Amino acid sequence: MADLTSFFNPGSVAVIGASRSPGKIGNVIVKNLIKSGYRGKIFPVNPKEAEIEGIPCYPSIERAPEPAGLAIISVPAAKVLEAAEECGKTGVKYLVVISAGFKETGKEGLELERRLVETCKKYKMRMLGPNCVGFMDTHVPINASFAAGFPMKDEIAFISQSGAMVLSILDWSFQAGLGFSKFVSLGNKAELTEAHLIEDAAEDPYTKVILCYIEDVENGPHFLEVARRASRKKPVIILKSGTSQAGAQAASSHTGALAGSDLAYETAFRQCGVIRARSMPELFDLAVAFACQPVPKGEKVAIITNSGGPGIVATDNVELKNLKMARFTKETLNELRSYLPPESNIYNPVDVLGDAKADRYRFALEKVLADPGVDSVVVLVCPAGVTEPLETARTMIELGKAYPEKPLFAAFMGGERLHGGVRALSEAKIPCFTFPEPAISAISGLVGYARTRERPQKEEVFNFKDLDKKIVKAIFYDVKKDNRLVLLGSEAAEVVAAYGVPVAPTVLSSSPEEAAGQADKIGYPVVLKIASPKIMHKTDVGGVKTGLATHDQVKAGFIEIMDNVHRYLPRVSVYGVEVQKMMPKGIELIIGVTRDVQFGPLIAFGLGGIYVNLLKDVSFRLTDGLSPREVINMIAETKAYTLLRGYRGEKPADIKAIIEIIGRVAKLVNDFPEITEMDINPVFAYNKGACALDVKITIS
Amino acid sequence: MADLTSFFNPGSVAVIGASRSPGKIGNVIVKNLIKSGYRGKIFPVNPKEAEIEGIPCYPSIERAPEPAGLAIISVPAAKVLEAAEECGKTGVKYLVVISAGFKETGKEGLELERRLVETCKKYKMRMLGPNCVGFMDTHVPINASFAAGFPMKDEIAFISQSGAMVLSILDWSFQAGLGFSKFVSLGNKAELTEAHLIEDAAEDPYTKVILCYIEDVENGPHFLEVARRASRKKPVIILKSGTSQAGAQAASSHTGALAGSDLAYETAFRQCGVIRARSMPELFDLAVAFACQPVPKGEKVAIITNSGGPGIVATDNVELKNLKMARFTKETLNELRSYLPPESNIYNPVDVLGDAKADRYRFALEKVLADPGVDSVVVLVCPAGVTEPLETARTMIELGKAYPEKPLFAAFMGGERLHGGVRALSEAKIPCFTFPEPAISAISGLVGYARTRERPQKEEVFNFKDLDKKIVKAIFYDVKKDNRLVLLGSEAAEVVAAYGVPVAPTVLSSSPEEAAGQADKIGYPVVLKIASPKIMHKTDVGGVKTGLATHDQVKAGFIEIMDNVHRYLPRVSVYGVEVQKMMPKGIELIIGVTRDVQFGPLIAFGLGGIYVNLLKDVSFRLTDGLSPREVINMIAETKAYTLLRGYRGEKPADIKAIIEIIGRVAKLVNDFPEITEMDINPVFAYNKGACALDVKITIS
Repeated sequence: MADLTSFFNPGSVAVIGASRSPGKIGNVIVKNLIKSGYRGKIFPVNPKEAEIEGIPCYPSIERAPEPAGLAIISVPAAKVLEAAEECGKTGVKYLVVISAGFKETGKEGLELERRLVETCKKYKMRMLGPNCVGFMDTHVPINASFAAGFPMKDEIAFISQSGAMVLSILDWSFQAGLGFSKFVSLGNKAELTEAHLIEDAAEDPYTKVILCYIEDVENGPHFLEVARRASRKKPVIILKSGTSQAGAQAASSHTGALAGSDLAYETAFRQCGVIRARSMPELFDLAVAFACQPVPKGEKVAIITNSGGPGIVATDNVELKNLKMARFTKETLNELRSYLPPESNIYNPVDVLGDAKADRYRFALEKVLADPGVDSVVVLVCPAGVTEPLETARTMIELGKAYPEKPLFAAFMGGERLHGGVRALSEAKIPCFTFPEPAISAISGLVGYARTRERPQKEEVFNFKDLDKKIVKAIFYDVKKDNRLVLLGSEAAEVVAAYGVPVAPTVLSSSPEEAAGQADKIGYPVVLKIASPKIMHKTDVGGVKTGLATHDQVKAGFIEIMDNVHRYLPRVSVYGVEVQKMMPKGIELIIGVTRDVQFGPLIAFGLGGIYVNLLKDVSFRLTDGLSPREVINMIAETKAYTLLRGYRGEKPADIKAIIEIIGRVAKLVNDFPEITEMDINPVFAYNKGACALDVKITIS
Repeated sequence: MADLTSFFNPGSVAVIGASRSPGKIGNVIVKNLIKSGYRGKIFPVNPKEAEIEGIPCYPSIERAPEPAGLAIISVPAAKVLEAAEECGKTGVKYLVVISAGFKETGKEGLELERRLVETCKKYKMRMLGPNCVGFMDTHVPINASFAAGFPMKDEIAFISQSGAMVLSILDWSFQAGLGFSKFVSLGNKAELTEAHLIEDAAEDPYTKVILCYIEDVENGPHFLEVARRASRKKPVIILKSGTSQAGAQAASSHTGALAGSDLAYETAFRQCGVIRARSMPELFDLAVAFACQPVPKGEKVAIITNSGGPGIVATDNVELKNLKMARFTKETLNELRSYLPPESNIYNPVDVLGDAKADRYRFALEKVLADPGVDSVVVLVCPAGVTEPLETARTMIELGKAYPEKPLFAAFMGGERLHGGVRALSEAKIPCFTFPEPAISAISGLVGYARTRERPQKEEVFNFKDLDKKIVKAIFYDVKKDNRLVLLGSEAAEVVAAYGVPVAPTVLSSSPEEAAGQADKIGYPVVLKIASPKIMHKTDVGGVKTGLATHDQVKAGFIEIMDNVHRYLPRVSVYGVEVQKMMPKGIELIIGVTRDVQFGPLIAFGLGGIYVNLLKDVSFRLTDGLSPREVINMIAETKAYTLLRGYRGEKPADIKAIIEIIGRVAKLVNDFPEITEMDINPVFAYNKGACALDVKITIS
């Protein structure tokens, strides 16, 4: 969709608001274009100047000798619209609006931004910003920004919603030895968003890893679609900040209360294969790992060390990060035993001892890399007296090349004494850390991505043929007409039943006689529940009677419930009493839905019952494109899964039935966007089949 | 107890195994002593040399001109014993045994080490090692090690079980700008352990922070006692590795299965106020924080930034690390509003904007530091065009001095452009990081320690007067005589009852008649349970009948249970049937005990019932010195606490009764070390009182 090739590599660039004054943004941009080695034409635009930095300057973009491919606008906000209009007229295809003073300043700025976007639409221009630093591409090369400096050339694209982050990371990257393919400052994201840039970077042959810093996503479905496709091609690593703004999320349902503000992002990222960095250091550690090392076949890590303590620290971290310590084959063990000193530990972690020189590391590393049970290797070096850091590094570089499919990491634990080795590794793109933990953490990131890529290209999808939309529509019609947002239990039961969810028969009755008659039809025993959209906790007001076994008991029960409710809540309007077939007890589950502004419906599954908010044993998925495979994963993440598989000698429950209910509920909320929240709690899971008992649906 | 002043500062040092050959450990040690500026006398000992490094050499320590205060032994393992013996004879008080070849090499080495310790005891010598790197003290100064280099002088003591870690950290410390008071390599810890060195460092006026790397603790109670005292005086920060060796811990009780191998350490550290570092980077980040900054009054953090994104990242981390964002007073807000540009964010995080020079930082920092609602401050600096890193750093240094009670941290996010500022901060001991996260993390460490220090000096203790040890002894006597390790339910009930734990009346019966007779006495309804130490899951074999309401039902139940068990488990020995009063249902809790080899009994509390292992809602404490305050904290850590306080409109349960049961059980297992494991599951908590239902006790 978004082919931004000519955006990053335009034939010519106009700089509107170019300046002769050093330090002014309009001057820095022109200089940056020149210094970056950009090979296209540069048209500085400024009515007051004849030339800037030795290049002819034009009074307006219309006066430039040819239409510019890209225009960088750096004039006061009030003049941006006019400049954009001129660009459009002259046939400019891409804008970078550096100027601030838009959405970020309030109402007027927002309106200005809206009109700017309209101008872009009118002329079919694509725009980065406004209120951004610009962009850089080291492979074109082009520096279309006012950042001080140009990154080293490499294969990491960094897309950032924060301009300051761009400046910081650029400055830091030189000492960190980190290179980039692109640097993009998104600014206000009025037109081009992270989704467009991720999409483009996914196709960019010079980009191997996509890094993002974002604070929000506005178009959830677009982001999901793009990120899902991009992350199949290359790793997309995102640091999403703003997770603490949870605050007071008003939610009436269990599911809503369980879903924090960050949950939708967390779920979305996982579901579309995005790797989520938890901190800035982790973002860049992961970037280096992916840029420099291959994705391993599996999770089995080998560690080679010249001292016990750091080996143990690394081993701890392997377990902590859900990786596995590799178990060597007999052949490997025999070879290690035959060559290494007898006091060495030949099992994983291999301890080549404090007096190890490079040759001993070479031997151990060669054997370990060759072992088919080893997926990745971490080499730890402590500066003992005879340690040969540089020679050891060179050995690693050489052997690493011989096993290009196995990630190789180093932790050279020390300072000056190890510098030579550290430098050599860094130049050879073997990530080298001071401590073991970040190395293991990085491998864990690689393994996680390997699992993501293993997912089938074409997911099996739910395919239900027996859904009755008409019934649902009719019920919603009536509820809306009744000026209600909350469905009665009997209505909600009918809704889910129309979508094939097995539900305990539930009917509304308005008199003792009617209730008893319906109970006769449903079959005994039955449960009676007060029917009122205003009463949330029915038991607390004496609004529930269970285990009624006869016609007369139902009649008496109806009257008792009505009396109770009248006593507790004399002014609450009541629709009658629901008669529900009493179902045998099964494993109590909850299946619920809440809706996220950006990403749409989130479906929840977990342990149900009255303690659902206490136990918080719930996993979530977006319903968008939900596959049976994802539902299985979702169930498996909960403790409820342990129960379903048969806990303490119980027979396993019918997990297939649960999967199907989840699929049907997902379909229901996708088909009916007016469902804002729903809870089925409990769903009873049986040995065979399952049954929804209490269904709550809120519509908008 | 362990006054090691003369160990670290001996009047003279003998080096047994001193050498003239450069690179040999015996030569490095002599050179290190000289180079460190050690002012006492040095006596190299080597029968083959007349002088080493310009100092007269002696053929044996007995021939030295005066008895040495400390002897460093670096001869082959086989000769160490003899050397130690000679040291003892000449009145040496302290040994550092560098030589390897002891416990770490196997059986013979272990025996050698045992004899070495005996020699130390015989002559009342204290010994560091064997198999260690030695020690350094920058304030004496003395370098009694073979490490390459001598640390910069500062106030951090680093005590390490791993010698390699000492070498690594020393080498790294120069580039990290980290100084130390002491560096101690513990080696095999045959005599002096981490506990002795922590105890000594706690008294050392030149040590402000105690850092430890350990892999195990052998004498748990000694460690606890020392660490508890030390951590009241100064922060004790420990990286404990080996957490992954969990493996297959065979345990028959719920409590045992819930307690991983790392749990005892985790619990011990927390209970004695030790700060646990989770990684090597965190260990040193915390060290710097404690060495350079004060402990804050509270958890309220203010952030000042020149850009939004990093401010949000920092804010996220404040919440993530259980800190709070400070809320400024009206005065502060007014002042910020009056001086900062209108686009600034004057609320926390304060955004002084990208064009902020040092003066704007000064204004904001001054006002924020002065705000009584601010406990600590983090200043973020991104390299925008006009940023003044050095001036901003100087401002921070100046204002930091004016508010010495408020921790001040920096994240200067960039590279070269910020170096001047970073260097100035580092010299002024204001910790400066590249990214915001470690700064927040460090503050979280400081705040955690502040809470630890707030604990009362003298804890209130449980004081029970009604404990009947005789009954317990008599029961254990009988059980041992019966060649059993597992108590019958009725016996276990009697044991806890003897310690004042309210328990449902339970008696053993051996015939239907007897059972019914006892039920008559206890009162109906009753529960019958098969009594056999071999049957773990009684319900599964039809060994339980509940709700028996009459004499005849009990008789029939007895027969039925016996029949069932005989059918399922024909060969299992059965002691009869237990008759237990059926108690009304309360909140189901578990109170259990497991025993750790190093640290003794661990008591568990949490949600009980059959799902205890599924829900894993359990908190732990060591019973050693357990106070009511700790028990309250323990309960409050669980979800069960939410239930006990009254969930969903329920009346609160009798938490005092639960606290008392925990105290009594703790006393029981402290008094009877033969109790290896016990579970009370469930304990029913009521509105008033509580009652133990099923008690399992295993003895050794």
